[in-house]
Amino acid sequence: MPVNLTAPEAQSLLPVKGIKLGAAEANVRKPDRKDVLVMQLAPGSKVAGVFTQNRFCAAPVTLCKEHLATGNEIRALVVNTGNANAGTGEPGMQHARQTCEALATLLECKPEQILPFSTGVIMEPLPADRIIQGLPRCIDDLQEDHWLRAAETIMTTDIVAKGVSRQIMIDGKALTITGISKGSGMIHPNMATMLGYIATDAAVSQAALESIIRHAVNRSFNCITVDGDTSTNDSLILIATGQSQLPQISETDAGFEVLRAAITEVAIELAQAIVRDGEGATKFMTVQVSGGRDKVECRKIAYAIAHSPLIKTAFFASDPNLGRILAAIGYAGVEDLDVNALRLYLGEYLVAENGGRAATYEEAQGAAVMHEPEITVRVELDRGPAEVTIWTCDFSYDYVRINADYRS
Amino acid sequence: MPVNLTAPEAQSLLPVKGIKLGAAEANVRKPDRKDVLVMQLAPGSKVAGVFTQNRFCAAPVTLCKEHLATGNEIRALVVNTGNANAGTGEPGMQHARQTCEALATLLECKPEQILPFSTGVIMEPLPADRIIQGLPRCIDDLQEDHWLRAAETIMTTDIVAKGVSRQIMIDGKALTITGISKGSGMIHPNMATMLGYIATDAAVSQAALESIIRHAVNRSFNCITVDGDTSTNDSLILIATGQSQLPQISETDAGFEVLRAAITEVAIELAQAIVRDGEGATKFMTVQVSGGRDKVECRKIAYAIAHSPLIKTAFFASDPNLGRILAAIGYAGVEDLDVNALRLYLGEYLVAENGGRAATYEEAQGAAVMHEPEITVRVELDRGPAEVTIWTCDFSYDYVRINADYRS
Repeated sequence: MPVNLTAPEAQSLLPVKGIKLGAAEANVRKPDRKDVLVMQLAPGSKVAGVFTQNRFCAAPVTLCKEHLATGNEIRALVVNTGNANAGTGEPGMQHARQTCEALATLLECKPEQILPFSTGVIMEPLPADRIIQGLPRCIDDLQEDHWLRAAETIMTTDIVAKGVSRQIMIDGKALTITGISKGSGMIHPNMATMLGYIATDAAVSQAALESIIRHAVNRSFNCITVDGDTSTNDSLILIATGQSQLPQISETDAGFEVLRAAITEVAIELAQAIVRDGEGATKFMTVQVSGGRDKVECRKIAYAIAHSPLIKTAFFASDPNLGRILAAIGYAGVEDLDVNALRLYLGEYLVAENGGRAATYEEAQGAAVMHEPEITVRVELDRGPAEVTIWTCDFSYDYVRINADYRS
Repeated sequence: MPVNLTAPEAQSLLPVKGIKLGAAEANVRKPDRKDVLVMQLAPGSKVAGVFTQNRFCAAPVTLCKEHLATGNEIRALVVNTGNANAGTGEPGMQHARQTCEALATLLECKPEQILPFSTGVIMEPLPADRIIQGLPRCIDDLQEDHWLRAAETIMTTDIVAKGVSRQIMIDGKALTITGISKGSGMIHPNMATMLGYIATDAAVSQAALESIIRHAVNRSFNCITVDGDTSTNDSLILIATGQSQLPQISETDAGFEVLRAAITEVAIELAQAIVRDGEGATKFMTVQVSGGRDKVECRKIAYAIAHSPLIKTAFFASDPNLGRILAAIGYAGVEDLDVNALRLYLGEYLVAENGGRAATYEEAQGAAVMHEPEITVRVELDRGPAEVTIWTCDFSYDYVRINADYRS
């Protein structure tokens, strides 16, 4: 079950003026579930995106990048679950184009004004015809208050829908930020996560929007891992509809940092929600590495800990088998690391120093922390100013069950 | 259960003249099991070793390197299970030294002529006193034909003991090679594996011995992974007692390549045995990547496949969910990889080409291969002459169970 995470109430996800959402059952992979989503953006909306760096990136990712690069104003997003349209070669590109063309015809815009997204099984042909047949029903369903329905529609192995809203005030004007995400396995984003959509009614210059999305993703979706597998379809989209009463915000405006901080908070909460709902997760782990020479070496150590199946199974068992953490620190690839200088903390307790177990550490302390649903592992390297925080989950029987059964 | 692997018969492990082995129950961690091993080497034996590159390397690894560096003739090895003596700081070094000193006194040699090894739980104090008390019983037990007993003594989560013998003829003289290994989890050796000992009665120059061990380890223990965790204690030792009738072999001798090939074969069989007995393993997977520009990029892709929990659980489920393999190839970090140029094979079947599923591939083919206990995944990159082969196992419920329970 997800760790300290429940689906949001429908009314807690605030409408963002200028965005309508509609879903339909299109029978992409399984019957009787909503599996196609359309998000319609009002004229004047600006859009920025970051995408997976997987070389086998999905056809819709390639097409999203193409359409964004044209500079055309984006008028709608279309998302299907059940099929990733990845590892599908040239036919996959054709299916993604056909989907955009069909939606463009219905919305009376150009195909380049549509961004397509897919998530689900890899290397199977996309049933574009069924998706296209579902589009008119999505359009009939378009409403400003359908954010929860949208979050539910894009789920795959997710147990709960994920969505967050914030309201902030800048210069006495209210701004709304609402975001949704999906993802539970194949989670080790590299530039973005599985699928995430964040929208605000602020007016934001394109440069400021690009700056904000990079800032936010590097502190949120790029700081999580479930299983170390970087997906073919990772995409995060940030939309600014400009429908609020506040004038356009650029990078030099006073409101820029306030907006950026709020969007980053939403992104972090959405990213953490993916870990809390990680496949089979029973524990939510925060891994902090500080005192590094640079962020690169901090990340190496943090991910060595977060990816180790031995550590993740020990957390599942609530077993303070902390030597496994030392081993992971040791093989993380920081070549001149002095293991005698570092300190390892579990929760508030100092566990290891001087190359071995701390004199003050008692097994009962470790056992107490390990039984908590949220656990912080902290490594102080004592050799520089850099620090990194990432989030992950444990590794349980259910992870194996879910992934052994996923296609069946 | 181990995949196509049973323990060797005692008589199938051939004595190597000049080596005696003795074991004892020393109650290191658990009662009623042999957990300390002494291997005594005849005068004139030469020894080479390769060790873990984990920065948190265990105290005995540090001491082994020290003792080998002195150039003293090695007269005995001492191995304990139940405790890794890693992450134990300065007290750990003292415990390792005390063990060597005690054995040196019993064998009337210098402490620098002893090599110590430990395997088991990390970050707990080594009960050196109990090990030392067990040493006289090990010495009473010394016999040339105790190789199987030795292999059994060094087991931890291993299900079966691992040992291999070969006899070869060079210049009409018979040479014997016998090796044992242990290891099942925390397996992703980097220069060596958990513990492996290979001995021959050939006389070999020190330079030739060092050359042979590097050749062998790079084609065996450095090509396996169970869970991607590089241990703190990995050690492989190659011993040449020089007790056969053949004159000393140096790198320029005709027999050198014959001996090297035979020792490499033994090393590969011992390394594969560790994977076959991988924690929870139900499948033995060979991953071949060919057509790379260099071995580095071949290894990146091979290990991305071999480490992916999503792929390993799909193999456990015998589910040909092969898109996960494409995803792993894509995120392996080969930056300019052309995914349209590569071909993916499962067993004999071409699965993917031109960036997507091969036209000839049928799900029934994949399903048939996936139900075999031994499966080959082959990736042809079509961009160069380099190739790499590695071995791994699947990821099952039992992996989680074993590692959630290991300390309890």
